[in-house]
Amino acid sequence: MKERASYEREVAYAILDEALLCHIGFSVDGSTTVLPTTYARVDDSLYVHGALANHMLGVLANDTPACVSVTLLDALVLARASFHHSMNYRSVVIFTKGTKVEDPTEKLAALNAIVEHVVPGRTSDARPPSEAELRASLVIRLPIEEFSAKVRVGPPIDDAEDLNLPIWAGIVPLQMIAGVGITDPILIPGVCAPSYATHYPPRA
Amino acid sequence: MKERASYEREVAYAILDEALLCHIGFSVDGSTTVLPTTYARVDDSLYVHGALANHMLGVLANDTPACVSVTLLDALVLARASFHHSMNYRSVVIFTKGTKVEDPTEKLAALNAIVEHVVPGRTSDARPPSEAELRASLVIRLPIEEFSAKVRVGPPIDDAEDLNLPIWAGIVPLQMIAGVGITDPILIPGVCAPSYATHYPPRA
Repeated sequence: MKERASYEREVAYAILDEALLCHIGFSVDGSTTVLPTTYARVDDSLYVHGALANHMLGVLANDTPACVSVTLLDALVLARASFHHSMNYRSVVIFTKGTKVEDPTEKLAALNAIVEHVVPGRTSDARPPSEAELRASLVIRLPIEEFSAKVRVGPPIDDAEDLNLPIWAGIVPLQMIAGVGITDPILIPGVCAPSYATHYPPRA
Repeated sequence: MKERASYEREVAYAILDEALLCHIGFSVDGSTTVLPTTYARVDDSLYVHGALANHMLGVLANDTPACVSVTLLDALVLARASFHHSMNYRSVVIFTKGTKVEDPTEKLAALNAIVEHVVPGRTSDARPPSEAELRASLVIRLPIEEFSAKVRVGPPIDDAEDLNLPIWAGIVPLQMIAGVGITDPILIPGVCAPSYATHYPPRA
C-alpha cells in the first residue's frame, strides 16, 4: 500500500510539473466556481498567486475547501465503435484547503517558482519583484495531501465482435508545442531572444 | 448592451467549439469536486456523457448547480518584470444546472455531436451506437445561460520605468498540434487511415 501511494504521488507530481494550468473549484453560499490559473509545485504544496483583490484567492485564503484539477491531453482514441471513443490523458485531482503565505521568504520563493515552472530559466533574466510588488501579491499555499491521479494510455478497446469491421481505429497523439518567441515591438534594440523563447520545449 | 452580450456569446461559443476538454465543478455536502471531461456544444447547450454509474453525471442529473470552465492557452507572456508575467488565453466560465436527456433522438444527437466535436467526420465512419449502448449512456444537457468569456491578447505590459531594461520581452505562442495517427495494432489489413487521423488540424 505504501509503495502504491508513493508511486501515485510520483505520477501526480510529474503531471503537475508538466502542465501549465490548473482549474480550481470552490463553493461560496452553495454556488460553485471553477477558474483557471497557473501555479507551481514546491515539495508537497501547490502555490497560486494573484492580486490582493483577486476574489478566488481571497476565498482560498479563508479556509474554504477547494479542488484543484490538472489535466494533460495526450491523444484522441478512435475506436471502431462510436461508443468506445475515448482520450488518452493524465490527470490529477487534489482536495485541499488554502493558506495565505505571510512569510516574505516563502512568498518570494513561491512567486519565483511559478515563473520558473512556466519558463525554466526566466527568473535569472527578469527583473525580480520589488518590495511593493511583493506586497501587492497574494500567494496561497495548497497542500497536496488528499489527491488522486488517473492515466489512460494505449490503443482503443473495442468489443470483440467489432474487431473485423473495416473501420480505421487507432490514436491521434496530441502535443502542446511552442512557436518561436515574438519580440515585444517596443523592446530596446540589441537584446537577443533567450533560448527558452526561441526553443521552448513541448509540453503534453 | 444587447450587442455586447451577443458578441460575448459569439466569443464564448468559438472557444467552446475549439477546446476539447472542459473542467466541471460541483459541490456535494460542502465538498467541491472538479473533473475534466469532453463535451459538445449544440445551439445554446453543452452536452456531456458517460456511463450510467458515473458519479459526476449522476450529481449533475440531480439539479445540482455546476460550473463549467473551458480554457485555451494561446501564449506565454514574458514581461521585463517578473511581476508582469502573464499568459494569453481565452476562457469561458458557465454557471449552469444539468438535466438528464431522456429523449432518444436528442440523446443520440448529443452523443454524435460529442464525437464530431472532437473528430469532425468521424461519425460517418465509426459504427453507430446500438440500442444497448444508448441505454448504457448517461447524457446531461447543460444550458449556456449565465456565462462569461475572458480573453487576453497582445504583448507584455511593463511599467514605464522598466521599458529601457536590456531584458528580452515578448510572447511565446503555444498550440496544440496532432501527430500522425497511430494505427491500432490489431486493425484488420487494408483499412486506410482517414485524413482526420493523418492530418488532424491544430487546436489552440
